[in-house]
Amino acid sequence: MTNGLAERLRLIVVTDPECGGRPLMDVVRAALQGGAPAIQLRIKDGDARPMADQARALLAETRRAGALLFINDRVDVALAVGAEGAHVGQSDLAATDVRRISPPGFLIGVSAESAELALAAQADGADYVGVGPVYATGSKADAGPPVGTERIGAIAAAVRIPVVGIGGITVENALPVTRAGAAGVAVISAVMQANDPEAATRALLRR
Amino acid sequence: MTNGLAERLRLIVVTDPECGGRPLMDVVRAALQGGAPAIQLRIKDGDARPMADQARALLAETRRAGALLFINDRVDVALAVGAEGAHVGQSDLAATDVRRISPPGFLIGVSAESAELALAAQADGADYVGVGPVYATGSKADAGPPVGTERIGAIAAAVRIPVVGIGGITVENALPVTRAGAAGVAVISAVMQANDPEAATRALLRR
Ligand code: NI
Repeated sequence: MTNGLAERLRLIVVTDPECGGRPLMDVVRAALQGGAPAIQLRIKDGDARPMADQARALLAETRRAGALLFINDRVDVALAVGAEGAHVGQSDLAATDVRRISPPGFLIGVSAESAELALAAQADGADYVGVGPVYATGSKADAGPPVGTERIGAIAAAVRIPVVGIGGITVENALPVTRAGAAGVAVISAVMQANDPEAATRALLRR
Repeated sequence: MTNGLAERLRLIVVTDPECGGRPLMDVVRAALQGGAPAIQLRIKDGDARPMADQARALLAETRRAGALLFINDRVDVALAVGAEGAHVGQSDLAATDVRRISPPGFLIGVSAESAELALAAQADGADYVGVGPVYATGSKADAGPPVGTERIGAIAAAVRIPVVGIGGITVENALPVTRAGAAGVAVISAVMQANDPEAATRALLRR
């Protein structure tokens, strides 16, 4: 499970339009300055054109910083702008479909809250699975009950691909997630809402 | 402008989840039975997985009938299921982006309510433009003021690619749209809400 990708997934900063009243691009730039190795652009139910414009602007920043850019759900936007990958949930396109329409090396993350779903995602060609919510969270209205760090460990033991814990993760509670076996953590508000997103990113990486 | 594609675009039946309380698939099957040469699957803000499932079910029907299937907005869904094309609006992916991520022969329709936008779409590689709303319409909440058949004629004269009129088109008012220069018409409620969708389709094709 330990390879170059796992290392680059030790922290995924997921964007949120609600980022403390600041321009999203400023917050992402600060996160990259703080060393974030991966960014996920997440916009729910927005139009594809402005999403592609924003993705291209983000990509200029992530490329400069040597970070990965994932696009949530909209695989067409990810392919159009040349992002490194896409993240899909269980109600988004299946990983097999994403693989079929994407170029070699395109990275596919799949949300999987159980070992069964994680194994299915792996069989479908996922490069990593996002598992959560690890803790109780207010960021995702559609999130289920917390799965806890034990489930993270069980899933990490079941699959060969990296597991990324997501949901309610903060600077304070991130360490048990990777201790349990996750390659990394994905955070939304811990960086997006942080007073100092750069410092928050550094602290999350220091764990 | 007259080629095989223009002939196949003489009627595009656009789906609507509101189709008289009947299963959408039944209404589409009736439209195909009536001779509809093209279907466009249009779902606003739905999840990609059920959309892909529905698109695959539709594709089995359209292939059997020798009709084209276009997917509205979600180019990734169109590519994943192997639909013949996608239809994009001005706030969806640009035609250049769609062309870049799709295989040769993939058909791209672009909504363009002015000659300028239609010429830009043509330059971007669009295979046809949808122009409208031709008449006042209740189906699309985001539709602008009616453009009328005169505008249809002006745009058809300006571009080489087929023009498809859309918006408020019924069995009764379809003829002036093609008389004005459109290769065809796209309809939503005229078939989706028709008591007899097969007969409505036949009537629309008889014009
Ligand atoms: Ni959506």
